[in-house]
Amino acid sequence: MNFLNKIWSIFQVKFKTSEQIESIKAYEPGKPISELEREYGIKESVKLASNENPLGHSAKVIDAVKEHLYTMNRYPDPRGHNLTQSLAKKYKVKSENIVIGNGSDEIIALLANAFLGTGEEALMPLPSFLMYEICVQIAKGTPVMVPLKNYKIDFDKTLEKVNKKTRMIFLTNPFNPTGSVFTTPEFLKFAQKVPDNVLIIVDEAYIEFVKDDSVFNSLENPLTDNRIVTLRTFSKAYGLAGFRLGYGVMDREVAQILHKIRPPFNVNSLAQAAGLAALNDIEFLNKSVDFILEQMSFIKTELDKMGIAYHPTHSNFLMINVEKEATQVFNDLLKLGVIIKSMRSYGFNNWVRVNAGTKKENETFIKALKKVL
Amino acid sequence: MNFLNKIWSIFQVKFKTSEQIESIKAYEPGKPISELEREYGIKESVKLASNENPLGHSAKVIDAVKEHLYTMNRYPDPRGHNLTQSLAKKYKVKSENIVIGNGSDEIIALLANAFLGTGEEALMPLPSFLMYEICVQIAKGTPVMVPLKNYKIDFDKTLEKVNKKTRMIFLTNPFNPTGSVFTTPEFLKFAQKVPDNVLIIVDEAYIEFVKDDSVFNSLENPLTDNRIVTLRTFSKAYGLAGFRLGYGVMDREVAQILHKIRPPFNVNSLAQAAGLAALNDIEFLNKSVDFILEQMSFIKTELDKMGIAYHPTHSNFLMINVEKEATQVFNDLLKLGVIIKSMRSYGFNNWVRVNAGTKKENETFIKALKKVL
Repeated sequence: MNFLNKIWSIFQVKFKTSEQIESIKAYEPGKPISELEREYGIKESVKLASNENPLGHSAKVIDAVKEHLYTMNRYPDPRGHNLTQSLAKKYKVKSENIVIGNGSDEIIALLANAFLGTGEEALMPLPSFLMYEICVQIAKGTPVMVPLKNYKIDFDKTLEKVNKKTRMIFLTNPFNPTGSVFTTPEFLKFAQKVPDNVLIIVDEAYIEFVKDDSVFNSLENPLTDNRIVTLRTFSKAYGLAGFRLGYGVMDREVAQILHKIRPPFNVNSLAQAAGLAALNDIEFLNKSVDFILEQMSFIKTELDKMGIAYHPTHSNFLMINVEKEATQVFNDLLKLGVIIKSMRSYGFNNWVRVNAGTKKENETFIKALKKVL
Repeated sequence: MNFLNKIWSIFQVKFKTSEQIESIKAYEPGKPISELEREYGIKESVKLASNENPLGHSAKVIDAVKEHLYTMNRYPDPRGHNLTQSLAKKYKVKSENIVIGNGSDEIIALLANAFLGTGEEALMPLPSFLMYEICVQIAKGTPVMVPLKNYKIDFDKTLEKVNKKTRMIFLTNPFNPTGSVFTTPEFLKFAQKVPDNVLIIVDEAYIEFVKDDSVFNSLENPLTDNRIVTLRTFSKAYGLAGFRLGYGVMDREVAQILHKIRPPFNVNSLAQAAGLAALNDIEFLNKSVDFILEQMSFIKTELDKMGIAYHPTHSNFLMINVEKEATQVFNDLLKLGVIIKSMRSYGFNNWVRVNAGTKKENETFIKALKKVL
């Protein structure tokens, strides 16, 4: 050990991280029920914070998991052959256009790591899913935030911020947390003006809940534009959040680069089996979407009766204007055993986000909200 | 679209990746049985390529999974509370010292992303687990390779390559693929000379198979040195490869940084449940290790009889000198339905690696090897 090192240890110099890493904001995941109940000593709490499917998931998922349960000493199929083939068939693309991930957030990280050089820019709405920003910072890229306009993505401002350093643009449709959407003409007008070497990443985590045909759906005619990367997840409408499974649909060459840098066994075996089973149970998917939209209507009707404002939504969640400190409302509801999400960290200080639960859960939420407001 | 962009599209300029990404080597995972059987049209093949546990996994894992199977619509516990607590208790550390990951390769990636600035250096043995190199390159760091000496990690040469840019050193014990180990005195002598601001990452994926007390085990007295990061996995001795579960034990401040940059739901719910169950079934673990070491003896004895050289090993795998092109031997064995790993990509052109399987599998392998050589 030389003299310099001794000095270091005296001053307890920490292991050095970059400025980018230092500046990363902590993502606050919706509290799991087990943790909340542990902390607050309550039971039978209701969680409407993470936009999960209140109906659970397809019964076929159970069978698929049980079938694989005795060979879990084996590594997963590194390419997810069966699941990828099924997805390709569904969207009329080739399997070489699909990359599956440990949740779609892994695909976000892979895209940032693959295509952002140090200081190169990724545009994204402000606020949006914090993982876009975190992944860009980890990749040593620069996140460039474009504030929403009337709770919607501001395409004009986004185009203004495109420059030579721009490598990718994140879009979310429907938008989380406001529930807003963009239409096909809006998207096409925008995309036309984006340079050919910039990836347009369209996160469609909630697209299964959209019933309006004018809303842009990037997989209706996939791969007509090699800049478009579609992100999809099994965590929401399919009800597989616990398994961790998402995927991207993209140009073959983009996919090849992601395959090159992804961990070889990134998606666990049961997620692959569960995803395949869920994909084949359209009946459960449709039933879920219908039920959830029905429950969204119930919540909206109740809020209307109470004279509480919310943002029009095309998804399974709703952003509500509680007209007081969101953290307070969050904490008050927590004490009544209802977990929702404060929108404070998104910059909406007086708003909370809630997703549709079961009929009983939604009634409990409405009752609790009445008490709290 | 401006003129320059039109030019770009004419010349089909691809989405730009960095030189680091361009230079990443493809990791070749051991072929899954399903893929091999698909490709070669064979059945009942034997896979001894991925150092998996031939006995499967604890029966308690099955029960644990079944118990969680009906709430998989919920996101996983983001902190892995129960599993982390159990690990902390086992190693007599605090849960704040533990980070669980989607396989231990995720912890490798997190460490590289957290602590490597652009061009900063990570030392590692050559050859070694390709994920070290890939993760360092993705983090825009510089991998610095230190060739093995007599099939062992060369501590002297490693120290020679330490400089002001060095941020971390990867060590593997037992070493994959040679099966060599280092002792506690060897490690301590080395660590003493490593600067205080350099992380020493000790990958102990195969440590459960070591029966020799002189071999270094970083969790015997954990956290006495805040530079040491221990990597462990549930994929090998515990037989949970399909679930994807690994973890790191490290200084609290190092762990905090990894928590900050990791995806919030990185470890799926069933992996958390399975890991907890496996951890509590010491009987199965011991039975597995005993069985596997017994089978290693069988393979060695047979190779001795055949006059075939192999490297002394402290693990569940063996590197064999086939004295001819490894790729050829790999392909010939493949045709006989036996999957092993060619060591060509590790620079050992005439060596293959094989792990202990069931008694029947090992007999099949020995028979096939006799035919092929």
